[in-house]
Amino acid sequence: MHSILKSPLGKELYEKYAKNLPIIDYHNHLCVEDILSDRVFENITQLWIAVDPYKHRAMRILGVPEHYITGSATDFEKFEKWYGCLPRLAGNPLYDWSCMEFQALFDMALEPFTAPAVQVYGQVNEKLKNLSAKKILARFNIAYSAPCATLTDDLSVFDGLEGICPSLRGDTVVAADEKFLQQLGQITDLAAFWQAVEKRIVAFTQVGCRFADHALDHGFAYVAEDGKNEGRFCKILAGETLPGEEKLALESHILRGLGSLYAKHGMTMQLHIGAKRTTSTRLRKVAGPVGGYAGIGSCVDVGALTNLLDDIERAGGLPKTILFTLNPADNAVMSILSGSYSADGVESIVTQGPAWWWCDHAQGMRQMLDHMSVYSVLSTFIGMTTDSRSLLSFVRHDYFRQILCQWIAEKVEGGYLPQNEEILGDLITRMCYTNAKTYI
Amino acid sequence: MHSILKSPLGKELYEKYAKNLPIIDYHNHLCVEDILSDRVFENITQLWIAVDPYKHRAMRILGVPEHYITGSATDFEKFEKWYGCLPRLAGNPLYDWSCMEFQALFDMALEPFTAPAVQVYGQVNEKLKNLSAKKILARFNIAYSAPCATLTDDLSVFDGLEGICPSLRGDTVVAADEKFLQQLGQITDLAAFWQAVEKRIVAFTQVGCRFADHALDHGFAYVAEDGKNEGRFCKILAGETLPGEEKLALESHILRGLGSLYAKHGMTMQLHIGAKRTTSTRLRKVAGPVGGYAGIGSCVDVGALTNLLDDIERAGGLPKTILFTLNPADNAVMSILSGSYSADGVESIVTQGPAWWWCDHAQGMRQMLDHMSVYSVLSTFIGMTTDSRSLLSFVRHDYFRQILCQWIAEKVEGGYLPQNEEILGDLITRMCYTNAKTYI
Amino acid sequence: MHSILKSPLGKELYEKYAKNLPIIDYHNHLCVEDILSDRVFENITQLWIAVDPYKHRAMRILGVPEHYITGSATDFEKFEKWYGCLPRLAGNPLYDWSCMEFQALFDMALEPFTAPAVQVYGQVNEKLKNLSAKKILARFNIAYSAPCATLTDDLSVFDGLEGICPSLRGDTVVAADEKFLQQLGQITDLAAFWQAVEKRIVAFTQVGCRFADHALDHGFAYVAEDGKNEGRFCKILAGETLPGEEKLALESHILRGLGSLYAKHGMTMQLHIGAKRTTSTRLRKVAGPVGGYAGIGSCVDVGALTNLLDDIERAGGLPKTILFTLNPADNAVMSILSGSYSADGVESIVTQGPAWWWCDHAQGMRQMLDHMSVYSVLSTFIGMTTDSRSLLSFVRHDYFRQILCQWIAEKVEGGYLPQNEEILGDLITRMCYTNAKTYI
Repeated sequence: MHSILKSPLGKELYEKYAKNLPIIDYHNHLCVEDILSDRVFENITQLWIAVDPYKHRAMRILGVPEHYITGSATDFEKFEKWYGCLPRLAGNPLYDWSCMEFQALFDMALEPFTAPAVQVYGQVNEKLKNLSAKKILARFNIAYSAPCATLTDDLSVFDGLEGICPSLRGDTVVAADEKFLQQLGQITDLAAFWQAVEKRIVAFTQVGCRFADHALDHGFAYVAEDGKNEGRFCKILAGETLPGEEKLALESHILRGLGSLYAKHGMTMQLHIGAKRTTSTRLRKVAGPVGGYAGIGSCVDVGALTNLLDDIERAGGLPKTILFTLNPADNAVMSILSGSYSADGVESIVTQGPAWWWCDHAQGMRQMLDHMSVYSVLSTFIGMTTDSRSLLSFVRHDYFRQILCQWIAEKVEGGYLPQNEEILGDLITRMCYTNAKTYI
Repeated sequence: MHSILKSPLGKELYEKYAKNLPIIDYHNHLCVEDILSDRVFENITQLWIAVDPYKHRAMRILGVPEHYITGSATDFEKFEKWYGCLPRLAGNPLYDWSCMEFQALFDMALEPFTAPAVQVYGQVNEKLKNLSAKKILARFNIAYSAPCATLTDDLSVFDGLEGICPSLRGDTVVAADEKFLQQLGQITDLAAFWQAVEKRIVAFTQVGCRFADHALDHGFAYVAEDGKNEGRFCKILAGETLPGEEKLALESHILRGLGSLYAKHGMTMQLHIGAKRTTSTRLRKVAGPVGGYAGIGSCVDVGALTNLLDDIERAGGLPKTILFTLNPADNAVMSILSGSYSADGVESIVTQGPAWWWCDHAQGMRQMLDHMSVYSVLSTFIGMTTDSRSLLSFVRHDYFRQILCQWIAEKVEGGYLPQNEEILGDLITRMCYTNAKTYI
Repeated sequence: MHSILKSPLGKELYEKYAKNLPIIDYHNHLCVEDILSDRVFENITQLWIAVDPYKHRAMRILGVPEHYITGSATDFEKFEKWYGCLPRLAGNPLYDWSCMEFQALFDMALEPFTAPAVQVYGQVNEKLKNLSAKKILARFNIAYSAPCATLTDDLSVFDGLEGICPSLRGDTVVAADEKFLQQLGQITDLAAFWQAVEKRIVAFTQVGCRFADHALDHGFAYVAEDGKNEGRFCKILAGETLPGEEKLALESHILRGLGSLYAKHGMTMQLHIGAKRTTSTRLRKVAGPVGGYAGIGSCVDVGALTNLLDDIERAGGLPKTILFTLNPADNAVMSILSGSYSADGVESIVTQGPAWWWCDHAQGMRQMLDHMSVYSVLSTFIGMTTDSRSLLSFVRHDYFRQILCQWIAEKVEGGYLPQNEEILGDLITRMCYTNAKTYI
């Protein structure tokens, strides 16, 4: 496989400081049941393609009929189609990831894709028999992995899992629909709601949860407290539907309140900003809500975002907050906010997260590094996380480390970073591992 | 002239795969009458400067009085001023294009601009006597060229022109003003309107038209169908003026309907997004509506754009759609949309177009390649088009091919593209020619 | 210190054309009293840290308690904290600036930060005894420096200061609050207001003022003239508070009127676009209105900006106008506007300013150069300005010159600029000095 570690200095830094560090993956969508049951995957399609919306998306772009993506084609047919797409994907991260995944896990070279699909399928399925979910995690040197769970999920699954802790997906709390409120328990008013929510948050922290996340999608708007949210909440309890503006006000109220609870209980709040999840109604029906057809939304309303953070700060202090942006045009805005809020003794109480989702490739990572470096302070970077549904995606930590070391080497060579190994080694160690460790 | 093909690999790829491919220029503003009459240009100012708003713009930036741009100065004076500006334009694409144009067509080196203007003017005018519009097209190896025509234009001019087919400029259909409706024929209601429009679209396809285009300018907003457009249309027929919101709703209705017709008749819909055409009222009066003073508008409202596409898809399916963005901050948004809509068996039913208008330079092209590569699939790229009024602008295809091959070489050298000639050669051939061929 | 002049050609161009040019710094926030009194600084903290919100911001990001930033810690303690932060700031411009400042002014190397803080503090304080404000200006070869003053400020301080002229901060005029109107004199109606304003503008030009500036912050909106501003102004005179929309209309009226006055009196209007100054209410209380916690606002509304410029042009002509953008995603928008307005015989009547504030680093400067080069005409660039409160910040002119020459060398090596020393030398001289000279 072609390597991106072209600079001798980059290679040296990688080998010495980055390569062997354990992995902290503080936000992903792994299937906990697969880990708990130590699932052995029946074939490569199940492990590699079925749960990966990135790949589905690429196949659609290449005109592959939906039958072979989410339809009733056989697992081999799906593999064959995907394998056939790969040479067409040169330049896309899927090309590199796929090659890295096969190399890292199966010690097989996919390039130059000349082996027949049926042969590759057979070989790799054979190797899969000796692998399992837990063996894959061990292979990747995972120290901490945080799959998403909603507030009302059963947490007992995390009991027996060393280093696997839930990341709280807070969106259902903010949406606060009837079903959620019923699951939450006997809720009679807003105070009871907050008591129940806090109780669950404590339960989450007791199983090692240190992160929560919220989606601030395209069009995210924010309404300041106006004292009417008790009333709005009671209407919801009474089964009424709130008009748009009222709903928004209540959602803002809940988001604010959760921010304060995260601060109180030492949790970090992740804000995933700028997805446009409603694009093709047809594909939503065909492929489900996370089917890989989401778009990048318009740039964030900075006023809404800063008001949210300011209000939480004024209500008693901010939690550690990570800003992820899906629209790369918002990179500078996100980087700069790390200097707009502060807390004595806390590094980067608001910080920019790693390149996220559609931006999670060499170009996106380098852009994020570029921006964070000059608009904020690189040495406070929390580190990479995959946000993935696939166990194979952990190769992206290594990808990130290679990209980081190559990027640093280029900056040194250009005179933008000092040729000082003590400073560079410290920088890399913090960015790949030790900073994230302070969050857990 | 300085060359941008610095990498030996880039040069090799260019020579082997790109250089000699025919040109498909699927959207431009060439003067069909000039081609039909095989115009011989009286002097270089008429061919090179008079119809090029890019050059007018650059002269204004350098403070050249309007007298020498669009005013009553002689053609030589205009040439002299423009020629005098060139050394000041180093770094701007006009500098490179101008040098390339003189080299390609007249075998003359403009650099280092030491020859007196009067001498260059005389020499090149002499050479012009042996050139004509058709000879210029032949020199550039043009396989397909699509100058704009409006729906009510006389199409007979295209009859005798091999490889010259109209590109339908749809904006007058959407605007649907009184004059347009009269030209369209006896229109008594919305159904009659659509019948007449479809009849003309069929006529366009019969002379080889495969592309339509619409300008979604700064502030583009979209209104979903509300069942009231029959009423709005009747008001227009009755000579009433619709208030802003009503007008917008009707325009959205027509745009949607046209999208469906393009899909039905195998045409590709180009959306040119983000121009700010109203800037200086003074310059608009002086230089006309396309006088080179347009700006770049604010980023697109992704919600409006995705709703438009979604509604057309739900109404029966999308046409092939090309998204051009004038604001480079929207590049990622545009690239990513190619994965948000799909059709079985069709590559990139929605795709990002080449760097457009003010972005149509090495930097803009490289940015577009960067974005399309990682946010979409480069090997589906439809290819370059000039969107130009000048016959000389075809050099930009060669410029694009050089930039592409150099860009690819750099990506290979950086480890971001595989060192696999089969893959790279296929990629280049598709991007420069064969993909566009599937559209015509 | 590591140098960014890596290319031999870049070094040569820098030495030959850039290095020794005088400095014109046409917009900053220097303390005129310090210069007038030729202040000798009691210690390095007073000179280097106390007035620099950039440094405060970086310390907050690294978790330094506010006590050591704006609090009651001793000057040595503040120095010690800042000095301790520096190795953590590699990659941030503060790292480079700090090293350059110590080198240029004290001939001391800060890197690798191994000397104890107390020792560095002692050494540099000793050197400070032989320095003063005027000596520092002389050291930097300052030909023209323009610290901000508001319209009602006493201008006599500028009488004895060669090459120090005020830059008019116009925001208090636009805000037109009661206090300002009282300071302005006996104002009975809008006509009297404009007479008094023009009288002061004339006074400013008489002490050499050639620049005014206005902050168009996040959310900047613009209202066209509606003939009701006389009424609005009378309400303000009567002590009434205008509702938001009314206030905005009056502010737009004043901004327009000022633009016309700047044009009439040969002043250049600087528009500083896109700051988000209200972020953390807590920090605003702690650190004051310019405490270093400002954010980058959302992209500008291009419609509002072009309407403002168009209205001023239609009212009698534009002043020279410089557009600064804080949001780098607006770079192309700003560059392109230089071709959207024009005046016979005036170069770039509207032009893009240098990378500003949070963007004022190698990356931001290179981006600005990239954009201005292809979307506008680089050779009309007005040149660097610091916009700083610190006398040491003049090193950034040298930083800019190095970055520019390195950038140019890279462009030549890539084939994007001609290898023509006459053109390159002219370009550099204009960009570093002679263009700015035409403004003063």
